[in-house]
Amino acid sequence: MKIKVGVSNRHVHLTKEVYFGLFGKSELEKDRDLDQPGQFASTSYVTIKKGDRELEKVRVLGPFRDYNQVEISQTDAYKLKVNPPVRDSGDLEGSESITLIGPNGSVDLSSGLILARRHIHITPEDMKKYGFEGLKKVAVLIKGEKGGIIDNIYFKVLDIASLTLHLDTDEGNAFNLKSGDEVILIKSLEDENETTK
Amino acid sequence: MKIKVGVSNRHVHLTKEVYFGLFGKSELEKDRDLDQPGQFASTSYVTIKKGDRELEKVRVLGPFRDYNQVEISQTDAYKLKVNPPVRDSGDLEGSESITLIGPNGSVDLSSGLILARRHIHITPEDMKKYGFEGLKKVAVLIKGEKGGIIDNIYFKVLDIASLTLHLDTDEGNAFNLKSGDEVILIKSLEDENETTK
Repeated sequence: MKIKVGVSNRHVHLTKEVYFGLFGKSELEKDRDLDQPGQFASTSYVTIKKGDRELEKVRVLGPFRDYNQVEISQTDAYKLKVNPPVRDSGDLEGSESITLIGPNGSVDLSSGLILARRHIHITPEDMKKYGFEGLKKVAVLIKGEKGGIIDNIYFKVLDIASLTLHLDTDEGNAFNLKSGDEVILIKSLEDENETTK
Repeated sequence: MKIKVGVSNRHVHLTKEVYFGLFGKSELEKDRDLDQPGQFASTSYVTIKKGDRELEKVRVLGPFRDYNQVEISQTDAYKLKVNPPVRDSGDLEGSESITLIGPNGSVDLSSGLILARRHIHITPEDMKKYGFEGLKKVAVLIKGEKGGIIDNIYFKVLDIASLTLHLDTDEGNAFNLKSGDEVILIKSLEDENETTK
Protein backbone atom coordinates (compact mmCIF):
# COMPACT_ATOMS: atom_id res chain seq x y z
CA MET A 1 0.00 0.00 0.00
CA LYS A 2 1.21 3.48 -0.86
CA ILE A 3 0.94 6.60 1.27
CA LYS A 4 1.37 10.28 0.44
CA VAL A 5 4.25 12.22 2.04
CA GLY A 6 4.13 15.69 3.57
CA VAL A 7 7.52 17.25 4.38
CA SER A 8 7.28 19.78 7.22
CA ASN A 9 9.72 22.65 7.38
CA ARG A 10 10.48 24.16 10.81
CA HIS A 11 7.38 25.85 12.25
CA VAL A 12 5.64 26.98 15.43
CA HIS A 13 2.21 26.43 16.96
CA LEU A 14 1.07 29.16 19.37
CA THR A 15 -1.65 29.99 21.84
CA LYS A 16 -3.72 33.09 21.12
CA GLU A 17 -2.16 34.77 24.17
CA VAL A 18 1.45 34.22 23.11
CA TYR A 19 0.62 35.26 19.54
CA PHE A 20 -0.83 38.50 20.89
CA GLY A 21 2.36 39.13 22.87
CA LEU A 22 4.51 38.62 19.79
CA PHE A 23 2.37 40.33 17.15
CA GLY A 24 0.03 42.69 19.04
CA LYS A 25 -3.03 41.20 17.34
CA SER A 26 -5.41 38.31 18.02
CA GLU A 27 -6.17 36.81 14.63
CA LEU A 28 -4.01 34.67 12.33
CA GLU A 29 -4.22 35.43 8.63
CA LYS A 30 -4.22 32.37 6.37
CA ASP A 31 -1.58 32.19 3.64
CA ARG A 32 -2.45 28.69 2.37
CA ASP A 33 -4.11 25.47 3.48
CA LEU A 34 -1.95 22.55 4.70
CA ASP A 35 -2.58 18.85 3.98
CA GLN A 36 -4.54 18.29 7.20
CA PRO A 37 -8.15 19.60 7.20
CA GLY A 38 -8.46 22.99 8.93
CA GLN A 39 -4.70 23.44 9.37
CA PHE A 40 -3.05 26.34 7.57
CA ALA A 41 0.21 28.23 7.05
CA SER A 42 -0.29 31.78 8.33
CA THR A 43 1.31 34.97 7.01
CA SER A 44 3.15 35.42 10.37
CA TYR A 45 6.78 34.52 11.04
CA VAL A 46 8.88 34.58 14.20
CA THR A 47 12.59 34.40 14.92
CA ILE A 48 13.55 31.59 17.29
CA LYS A 49 16.59 32.20 19.50
CA LYS A 50 18.72 30.08 21.81
CA GLY A 51 21.67 31.82 23.47
CA ASP A 52 23.45 33.74 20.70
CA ARG A 53 22.10 31.50 17.91
CA GLU A 54 18.90 32.18 16.02
CA LEU A 55 16.80 31.09 13.04
CA GLU A 56 14.76 33.73 11.25
CA LYS A 57 11.48 33.48 9.36
CA VAL A 58 9.98 30.48 11.14
CA ARG A 59 6.36 30.15 10.06
CA VAL A 60 3.45 30.30 12.51
CA LEU A 61 0.85 27.64 11.66
CA GLY A 62 -2.85 27.97 12.43
CA PRO A 63 -5.29 27.63 14.00
CA PHE A 64 -4.19 28.56 17.53
CA ARG A 65 -3.54 25.65 19.91
CA ASP A 66 -3.67 25.33 23.69
CA TYR A 67 0.13 24.95 23.85
CA ASN A 68 3.20 26.62 22.36
CA GLN A 69 5.42 24.31 20.33
CA VAL A 70 8.42 24.81 18.05
CA GLU A 71 9.27 21.95 15.65
CA ILE A 72 12.73 21.94 14.06
CA SER A 73 14.99 19.45 12.27
CA GLN A 74 18.26 18.03 13.60
CA THR A 75 20.05 20.29 11.07
CA ASP A 76 18.35 23.28 12.71
CA ALA A 77 19.22 21.88 16.15
CA TYR A 78 22.95 21.91 15.27
CA LYS A 79 22.63 25.51 14.09
CA LEU A 80 21.00 26.50 17.40
CA LYS A 81 23.45 24.31 19.39
CA VAL A 82 20.56 22.62 21.18
CA ASN A 83 19.50 19.01 21.69
CA PRO A 84 15.68 18.79 21.65
CA PRO A 85 13.92 15.47 22.29
CA VAL A 86 11.89 13.54 19.68
CA ARG A 87 8.25 14.07 20.69
CA ASP A 88 4.63 13.90 19.63
CA SER A 89 2.75 17.18 19.31
CA GLY A 90 1.67 18.49 22.71
CA ASP A 91 3.97 16.15 24.67
CA LEU A 92 6.22 18.97 25.82
CA GLU A 93 7.15 18.27 29.45
CA GLY A 94 10.92 18.40 29.78
CA SER A 95 11.43 19.51 26.18
CA GLU A 96 13.88 22.33 25.37
CA SER A 97 13.43 26.00 26.23
CA ILE A 98 13.44 28.57 23.42
CA THR A 99 12.84 32.28 22.90
CA LEU A 100 10.38 33.53 20.28
CA ILE A 101 10.77 37.01 18.80
CA GLY A 102 7.99 38.79 16.91
CA PRO A 103 7.52 42.35 15.66
CA ASN A 104 5.72 43.35 18.86
CA GLY A 105 7.76 41.59 21.53
CA SER A 106 9.47 38.38 22.61
CA VAL A 107 8.42 35.40 24.75
CA ASP A 108 10.65 32.96 26.64
CA LEU A 109 9.21 29.45 26.61
CA SER A 110 10.55 27.20 29.38
CA SER A 111 9.73 24.20 27.17
CA GLY A 112 8.23 23.54 23.73
CA LEU A 113 11.21 22.98 21.39
CA ILE A 114 11.09 19.46 19.88
CA LEU A 115 12.00 17.28 16.93
CA ALA A 116 8.67 15.91 15.64
CA ARG A 117 8.25 12.15 15.93
CA ARG A 118 7.65 10.55 12.52
CA HIS A 119 3.90 10.05 12.21
CA ILE A 120 0.99 9.23 9.96
CA HIS A 121 -2.26 11.23 10.16
CA ILE A 122 -5.14 8.78 9.87
CA THR A 123 -8.80 8.43 10.86
CA PRO A 124 -10.17 5.51 12.94
CA GLU A 125 -12.11 4.49 9.81
CA ASP A 126 -8.91 4.26 7.74
CA MET A 127 -7.16 2.32 10.54
CA LYS A 128 -9.93 -0.28 10.15
CA LYS A 129 -10.19 -0.06 6.37
CA TYR A 130 -6.47 -0.73 5.81
CA GLY A 131 -6.12 -3.35 8.54
CA PHE A 132 -3.90 -1.26 10.83
CA GLU A 133 -5.96 -1.79 13.99
CA GLY A 134 -3.71 -3.04 16.79
CA LEU A 135 -0.60 -1.59 15.13
CA LYS A 136 1.27 1.13 16.96
CA LYS A 137 3.84 1.89 14.30
CA VAL A 138 4.97 1.06 10.77
CA ALA A 139 7.85 1.79 8.40
CA VAL A 140 8.00 3.01 4.81
CA LEU A 141 10.09 1.85 1.88
CA ILE A 142 11.55 4.43 -0.50
CA LYS A 143 12.80 3.20 -3.88
CA GLY A 144 15.55 4.66 -6.05
CA GLU A 145 19.13 5.83 -5.77
CA LYS A 146 18.45 7.71 -2.53
CA GLY A 147 16.25 4.89 -1.26
CA GLY A 148 15.92 3.01 2.00
CA ILE A 149 13.51 2.52 4.88
CA ILE A 150 12.26 5.02 7.44
CA ASP A 151 11.24 3.14 10.56
CA ASN A 152 9.30 3.91 13.74
CA ILE A 153 6.48 5.89 12.19
CA TYR A 154 3.60 6.17 14.66
CA PHE A 155 -0.11 6.39 13.89
CA LYS A 156 -1.73 9.65 14.94
CA VAL A 157 -5.38 8.66 14.92
CA LEU A 158 -7.74 11.64 14.71
CA ASP A 159 -11.40 11.86 13.68
CA ILE A 160 -10.50 14.53 11.15
CA ALA A 161 -7.43 13.54 9.15
CA SER A 162 -6.14 13.23 5.61
CA LEU A 163 -4.02 10.08 5.26
CA THR A 164 -0.47 11.50 5.10
CA LEU A 165 3.01 10.61 6.37
CA HIS A 166 4.66 13.62 7.98
CA LEU A 167 8.46 13.83 7.86
CA ASP A 168 10.83 16.67 8.67
CA THR A 169 13.15 18.25 6.09
CA ASP A 170 16.17 16.11 7.09
CA GLU A 171 14.17 12.93 6.54
CA GLY A 172 12.68 14.23 3.30
CA ASN A 173 16.00 15.43 1.93
CA ALA A 174 17.97 12.29 2.92
CA PHE A 175 15.63 10.29 0.67
CA ASN A 176 14.96 13.04 -1.89
CA LEU A 177 11.24 13.10 -1.02
CA LYS A 178 8.99 16.08 -1.63
CA SER A 179 5.47 16.76 -0.38
CA GLY A 180 3.03 14.83 -2.56
CA ASP A 181 5.43 11.97 -3.31
CA GLU A 182 4.24 8.45 -2.49
CA VAL A 183 6.09 5.77 -0.52
CA ILE A 184 5.31 2.15 0.32
CA LEU A 185 4.00 1.20 3.76
CA ILE A 186 5.69 -1.85 5.31
CA LYS A 187 5.97 -3.47 8.74
CA SER A 188 8.18 -1.79 11.32
CA LEU A 189 11.71 -3.25 11.45
CA GLU A 190 11.50 -3.34 15.22
CA ASP A 191 9.32 -6.07 16.60
CA GLU A 192 7.80 -3.94 19.31
CA ASN A 193 4.26 -3.51 18.15
CA GLU A 194 1.83 -3.49 21.00
CA THR A 195 -1.92 -3.63 20.85
CA THR A 196 -3.38 -0.17 21.09
CA LYS A 197 -6.25 0.26 23.52
CA MET B 1 28.98 -6.67 10.91
CA LYS B 2 29.28 -3.08 12.12
CA ILE B 3 30.84 -0.18 10.27
CA LYS B 4 31.92 3.28 11.41
CA VAL B 5 30.13 6.34 10.04
CA GLY B 6 31.67 9.59 8.82
CA VAL B 7 29.21 12.45 8.22
CA SER B 8 30.52 14.91 5.61
CA ASN B 9 29.46 18.53 5.74
CA ARG B 10 29.44 20.51 2.48
CA HIS B 11 33.00 20.90 1.15
CA VAL B 12 35.10 21.51 -1.96
CA HIS B 13 38.05 19.74 -3.59
CA LEU B 14 40.25 21.98 -5.75
CA THR B 15 43.14 21.84 -8.19
CA LYS B 16 46.25 23.76 -7.22
CA GLU B 17 45.58 26.20 -10.09
CA VAL B 18 42.03 27.07 -9.01
CA TYR B 19 43.12 27.36 -5.38
CA PHE B 20 45.80 29.84 -6.47
CA GLY B 21 43.20 31.89 -8.33
CA LEU B 22 40.93 32.01 -5.26
CA PHE B 23 43.54 32.46 -2.52
CA GLY B 24 46.67 33.81 -4.24
CA LYS B 25 48.83 31.07 -2.73
CA SER B 26 49.84 27.55 -3.69
CA GLU B 27 49.85 25.59 -0.46
CA LEU B 28 46.97 24.31 1.66
CA GLU B 29 47.39 24.59 5.43
CA LYS B 30 46.09 21.60 7.41
CA ASP B 31 43.55 22.27 10.12
CA ARG B 32 42.90 18.62 11.06
CA ASP B 33 43.12 15.11 9.63
CA LEU B 34 40.00 13.44 8.21
CA ASP B 35 39.07 9.76 8.58
CA GLN B 36 40.69 8.75 5.27
CA PRO B 37 44.53 8.45 5.34
CA GLY B 38 46.23 11.58 3.91
CA GLN B 39 42.99 13.57 3.58
CA PHE B 40 42.62 16.71 5.66
CA ALA B 41 40.39 19.70 6.39
CA SER B 42 42.32 22.84 5.44
CA THR B 43 42.11 26.26 7.06
CA SER B 44 40.70 27.72 3.80
CA TYR B 45 37.03 28.44 3.11
CA VAL B 46 35.19 29.63 0.00
CA THR B 47 31.73 31.04 -0.66
CA ILE B 48 29.77 29.08 -3.26
CA LYS B 49 27.29 31.06 -5.35
CA LYS B 50 24.52 30.20 -7.80
CA GLY B 51 22.58 33.13 -9.24
CA ASP B 52 21.67 35.35 -6.29
CA ARG B 53 21.94 32.51 -3.74
CA GLU B 54 25.11 31.67 -1.85
CA LEU B 55 26.51 29.56 0.98
CA GLU B 56 29.42 30.97 2.95
CA LYS B 57 32.28 29.24 4.77
CA VAL B 58 32.47 26.07 2.71
CA ARG B 59 35.62 24.21 3.69
CA VAL B 60 38.39 23.38 1.21
CA LEU B 61 39.67 19.83 1.78
CA GLY B 62 43.20 18.69 0.98
CA PRO B 63 45.33 17.52 -0.65
CA PHE B 64 44.77 19.14 -4.08
CA ARG B 65 43.04 16.97 -6.70
CA ASP B 66 43.11 16.96 -10.49
CA TYR B 67 39.49 18.18 -10.62
CA ASN B 68 37.32 20.81 -8.92
CA GLN B 69 34.32 19.43 -7.08
CA VAL B 70 31.73 20.88 -4.70
CA GLU B 71 29.75 18.41 -2.56
CA ILE B 72 26.56 19.67 -0.92
CA SER B 73 23.44 18.18 0.68
CA GLN B 74 19.89 18.34 -0.70
CA THR B 75 19.13 20.88 2.05
CA ASP B 76 21.93 23.07 0.64
CA ALA B 77 20.63 22.45 -2.89
CA TYR B 78 17.23 23.91 -1.95
CA LYS B 79 18.96 26.96 -0.45
CA LEU B 80 20.92 27.48 -3.69
CA LYS B 81 17.84 26.66 -5.83
CA VAL B 82 19.82 24.11 -7.81
CA ASN B 83 19.33 20.46 -8.66
CA PRO B 84 22.73 18.68 -8.71
CA PRO B 85 22.99 15.00 -9.66
CA VAL B 86 24.02 12.20 -7.26
CA ARG B 87 27.58 11.31 -8.29
CA ASP B 88 30.81 9.58 -7.31
CA SER B 89 33.85 11.76 -6.74
CA GLY B 90 35.44 12.83 -10.04
CA ASP B 91 32.41 11.79 -12.15
CA LEU B 92 31.53 15.38 -13.01
CA GLU B 93 30.47 15.44 -16.66
CA GLY B 94 27.08 17.10 -16.92
CA SER B 95 26.99 18.01 -13.22
CA GLU B 96 25.88 21.49 -12.13
CA SER B 97 27.79 24.73 -12.67
CA ILE B 98 28.78 26.81 -9.64
CA THR B 99 30.81 29.91 -8.79
CA LEU B 100 33.53 29.82 -6.11
CA ILE B 101 34.55 33.01 -4.33
CA GLY B 102 37.78 33.34 -2.35
CA PRO B 103 39.63 36.27 -0.77
CA ASN B 104 41.74 36.73 -3.92
CA GLY B 105 39.20 36.21 -6.70
CA SER B 106 36.38 34.06 -8.02
CA VAL B 107 36.17 31.12 -10.42
CA ASP B 108 33.17 29.96 -12.49
CA LEU B 109 33.07 26.18 -12.80
CA SER B 110 30.99 24.93 -15.74
CA SER B 111 30.46 21.66 -13.84
CA GLY B 112 31.49 20.18 -10.48
CA LEU B 113 28.51 20.65 -8.15
CA ILE B 114 27.17 17.29 -6.96
CA LEU B 115 25.39 15.41 -4.20
CA ALA B 116 27.84 12.70 -3.10
CA ARG B 117 26.70 9.14 -3.72
CA ARG B 118 26.53 7.14 -0.49
CA HIS B 119 29.75 5.14 -0.29
CA ILE B 120 32.05 3.00 1.84
CA HIS B 121 35.81 3.52 1.75
CA ILE B 122 37.44 0.10 1.78
CA THR B 123 40.67 -1.62 0.70
CA PRO B 124 40.76 -4.65 -1.66
CA GLU B 125 42.06 -6.64 1.34
CA ASP B 126 39.00 -5.73 3.43
CA MET B 127 36.67 -6.54 0.50
CA LYS B 128 38.13 -10.06 0.60
CA LYS B 129 38.39 -10.31 4.40
CA TYR B 130 34.71 -9.46 4.97
CA GLY B 131 33.38 -11.46 2.01
CA PHE B 132 32.25 -8.45 -0.04
CA GLU B 133 33.99 -9.48 -3.29
CA GLY B 134 31.47 -9.46 -6.13
CA LEU B 135 29.19 -7.03 -4.29
CA LYS B 136 28.62 -3.62 -5.83
CA LYS B 137 26.52 -2.13 -3.09
CA VAL B 138 25.10 -2.74 0.37
CA ALA B 139 22.71 -1.12 2.85
CA VAL B 140 23.01 -0.26 6.54
CA LEU B 141 20.57 -0.72 9.40
CA ILE B 142 20.24 2.01 12.02
CA LYS B 143 18.52 1.10 15.28
CA GLY B 144 16.57 3.33 17.62
CA GLU B 145 13.78 5.88 17.53
CA LYS B 146 15.24 7.61 14.45
CA GLY B 147 16.11 4.26 12.89
CA GLY B 148 15.71 2.70 9.48
CA ILE B 149 17.77 1.54 6.53
CA ILE B 150 19.98 3.53 4.17
CA ASP B 151 20.21 1.68 0.86
CA ASN B 152 22.35 1.88 -2.27
CA ILE B 153 25.71 2.39 -0.59
CA TYR B 154 28.50 1.70 -3.08
CA PHE B 155 31.95 0.32 -2.35
CA LYS B 156 34.78 2.72 -3.15
CA VAL B 157 37.71 0.34 -3.26
CA LEU B 158 41.08 2.06 -2.83
CA ASP B 159 44.49 0.68 -1.84
CA ILE B 160 44.70 3.25 0.92
CA ALA B 161 41.44 3.43 2.87
CA SER B 162 40.08 3.35 6.39
CA LEU B 163 36.86 1.32 6.49
CA THR B 164 34.19 4.04 6.84
CA LEU B 165 30.68 4.75 5.57
CA HIS B 166 30.42 8.31 4.25
CA LEU B 167 27.04 10.03 4.46
CA ASP B 168 26.04 13.66 3.96
CA THR B 169 24.51 15.80 6.70
CA ASP B 170 20.91 15.17 5.56
CA GLU B 171 21.43 11.43 5.80
CA GLY B 172 23.26 11.72 9.11
CA ASN B 173 20.68 14.04 10.64
CA ALA B 174 17.64 12.08 9.41
CA PHE B 175 18.91 9.10 11.44
CA ASN B 176 20.58 11.10 14.23
CA LEU B 177 24.02 9.71 13.28
CA LYS B 178 27.28 11.47 14.12
CA SER B 179 30.79 10.76 12.86
CA GLY B 180 32.20 7.83 14.82
CA ASP B 181 28.83 6.13 15.37
CA GLU B 182 28.50 2.53 14.21
CA VAL B 183 25.77 1.02 12.04
CA ILE B 184 25.02 -2.52 10.89
CA LEU B 185 25.91 -3.61 7.33
CA ILE B 186 23.16 -5.58 5.57
CA LYS B 187 22.30 -6.62 2.01
CA SER B 188 21.02 -3.97 -0.36
CA LEU B 189 17.18 -3.86 -0.54
CA GLU B 190 17.39 -3.69 -4.32
CA ASP B 191 18.27 -6.95 -5.98
CA GLU B 192 20.61 -5.40 -8.51
CA ASN B 193 24.00 -6.54 -7.36
CA GLU B 194 26.27 -7.28 -10.24
CA THR B 195 29.65 -8.94 -10.17
CA THR B 196 32.37 -6.34 -10.20
CA LYS B 197 35.17 -6.89 -12.68
